[in-house]
Amino acid sequence: MMTQPIWPPPPRTIMTPGPVEADPRVLRAMSYPMLGQFDPAFTALMNETMALLRRLFRTSNRQAYPVDGTSRAGLEAVLAGVVEPGDRVLVPICGRFGHLLHEIAERYGADVRVIEREWGTVFDPEDIIRAIRQYRPKVVALVHGETSTGRLQPLDGIGAACREYDALLVVDAVATIGGVPVNTDEWLLDAVVGGTQKCLSVPSGMAPLTYNGRVERILAARRRIERGIRPPGGGDSERPFIRSNYLDLCQLQDYWGPERLNHHTEMTAMLYGLREGVRIALEEGLEERFRRHRLHERALVRGLEAMGLTLFGDPACKLPVVTCVNIPEGVDGESVRAMLLERFGIEIAGSFGPLRGRIWRIGTMGYSCHMRNVLLTLGGLEAVLLRHGMRVPAGEALQAAMEVYEEEQAAQAARQA
Amino acid sequence: MMTQPIWPPPPRTIMTPGPVEADPRVLRAMSYPMLGQFDPAFTALMNETMALLRRLFRTSNRQAYPVDGTSRAGLEAVLAGVVEPGDRVLVPICGRFGHLLHEIAERYGADVRVIEREWGTVFDPEDIIRAIRQYRPKVVALVHGETSTGRLQPLDGIGAACREYDALLVVDAVATIGGVPVNTDEWLLDAVVGGTQKCLSVPSGMAPLTYNGRVERILAARRRIERGIRPPGGGDSERPFIRSNYLDLCQLQDYWGPERLNHHTEMTAMLYGLREGVRIALEEGLEERFRRHRLHERALVRGLEAMGLTLFGDPACKLPVVTCVNIPEGVDGESVRAMLLERFGIEIAGSFGPLRGRIWRIGTMGYSCHMRNVLLTLGGLEAVLLRHGMRVPAGEALQAAMEVYEEEQAAQAARQA
Repeated sequence: MMTQPIWPPPPRTIMTPGPVEADPRVLRAMSYPMLGQFDPAFTALMNETMALLRRLFRTSNRQAYPVDGTSRAGLEAVLAGVVEPGDRVLVPICGRFGHLLHEIAERYGADVRVIEREWGTVFDPEDIIRAIRQYRPKVVALVHGETSTGRLQPLDGIGAACREYDALLVVDAVATIGGVPVNTDEWLLDAVVGGTQKCLSVPSGMAPLTYNGRVERILAARRRIERGIRPPGGGDSERPFIRSNYLDLCQLQDYWGPERLNHHTEMTAMLYGLREGVRIALEEGLEERFRRHRLHERALVRGLEAMGLTLFGDPACKLPVVTCVNIPEGVDGESVRAMLLERFGIEIAGSFGPLRGRIWRIGTMGYSCHMRNVLLTLGGLEAVLLRHGMRVPAGEALQAAMEVYEEEQAAQAARQA
Repeated sequence: MMTQPIWPPPPRTIMTPGPVEADPRVLRAMSYPMLGQFDPAFTALMNETMALLRRLFRTSNRQAYPVDGTSRAGLEAVLAGVVEPGDRVLVPICGRFGHLLHEIAERYGADVRVIEREWGTVFDPEDIIRAIRQYRPKVVALVHGETSTGRLQPLDGIGAACREYDALLVVDAVATIGGVPVNTDEWLLDAVVGGTQKCLSVPSGMAPLTYNGRVERILAARRRIERGIRPPGGGDSERPFIRSNYLDLCQLQDYWGPERLNHHTEMTAMLYGLREGVRIALEEGLEERFRRHRLHERALVRGLEAMGLTLFGDPACKLPVVTCVNIPEGVDGESVRAMLLERFGIEIAGSFGPLRGRIWRIGTMGYSCHMRNVLLTLGGLEAVLLRHGMRVPAGEALQAAMEVYEEEQAAQAARQA
């Protein structure tokens, strides 16, 4: 509509399943001056970040550090590390990011076995356990929060089954970490990869991950110190080496560990940001944070329903931080999204594959997940839908959402009394 | 000495071969609020960044964009893209980063042929051309600015030889881009990878690169659209697909191109920073920038020599942005570095492999490369060497360096008169 200058970025309310608005404290941290990567002041920050990540992932794993790349770099690093050519990998798929795990495992030479369910549902853990029994995979790779469909995969019992059948459980928690419980140790998850630009509200650029001794043992057998810093006669691996150098977890853990073996140059500003983002999450308290995400989800859903919209997918497994809305018949979903962005500066998302053009996805993640954003989004969406000729009961969405907040206030007051 | 709190980072003068101090304009740009990755305001910034990178690389290549990872991610992306298993790759090595190219090419299944020269020298281009004739490689991968030894590899005639023998020329310009001329088109370089945290003075985290139609044709034959967004029946490659998904240039160029095929979530803050860093370099003017790097190198070298120190390596191929100094006999190089960092907040580097403990490396790169930093470094180093019991002609280093600046001032005045 109006032409914008290219810089600075226009103000946005970002209610997508990521990237979302970054916490201003994170942005401020990122703007601090550089440190050299082996400066003791920097390695102290690296060590502290590892300790913070352990608390975030709820684990006592020694290994907890970020991979220097966006979320899928973390997923690839883990799969490249544990999958040797020909290894069997089981991937349960019910959305786009399940397909991504399949894709990555396949690229690294895995014999991938897939079980699929319709997008909008998840697997009964029993189905996954049955498939583990049937296929006897070395690795089970699955998505915890499937943002393409807005579903949360329950993990109960899968970790125990993996131990029983000697499989590794690799979990994509990119969308859930910091917004929904991810209990690495309690659930017996062997490797977990989180994302920065979703519930942690740090700009995209790092993939925090953790893995346990079961994964470390596989990596140890594949360790290969790179040419140029390899001691004479040393550094060869017993087993097929990892194809990627950049995403080689053996090298990364030697860089993050006390060895401090030179690998890449750590992303200074991103590390400052990640550290601050995790600090913020832990300061709020993880349980309190999960509760906050549930509250704003409730207000958003109540408002959407009051507008006459319906939600997509099986409600029993709804992902609290992503709400999928069926695009009403006769409404051009992309036109609605464009107008909402252009006039209100509010961004919501479409989806992929079979859901393209069928649903909107509204995120309530991290720093973006608060009352003001939920109310602005509902108000803006209502106006845009009316502008698109849809019959919407004007005003009701906001009243309904505000009721949720007032109920919560009353409940809080009652708890304190 | 004194215990430091972990945050904020202490002020540092960073005179290493990278990471160096980031330009405050870059840090400020990185602290702007987020945009969604498909927000038109963001894709406009992506397109503008591509145009800026073309000017930085002095190329009319269509493909010029950053890979979302540190420098070696860019090197790996290019090698993973052009090297199919069994392909012959020639790597001339005379330092650590030559070994890295060998390492990466080997991991992707290349039949690597190496020619080596002593660390501290470079190759006569004729030697490389002779090896091309002998080995007939598909790819020649070499380092332009070898930071481990502080040498600059001349490239004259190598591009033409590669065309003649149908080889691709892949150049690691991580240390040179923005500090030393990198004339992609004029020199017939097929793919060039730059770094952010050196002469561009942007925090580590992206690897800007460019490649031409010869590389694009190889990639086109290997294109493979990923599962989950692949149209039914489409997306298969004719030739062996690229092993990495994250570093798959086919996918990256479809993401950066008008197709905007979803891949990773672009690093918003890093992109803001890279764009600003390249803008600053172009505003200064590349030629003026190269001249500035030469000036401060001269002042630094004159000061070091006045201190009685000697330079390492063949002076005919000295890399202007890195100065390697022989650690004087009887002096503990690491102790000097530590004291310089602890007391003066000035960081210089050691080196790798055969040069470990033998040389210091002092960078004069990008935003770190200015008179104040050069003088502070010389002054600090002198004091620390005296403190280590070395006989240094006190005061002479700074006088010598200041003379260089005064000569330059006089020359400038003469030119303007």
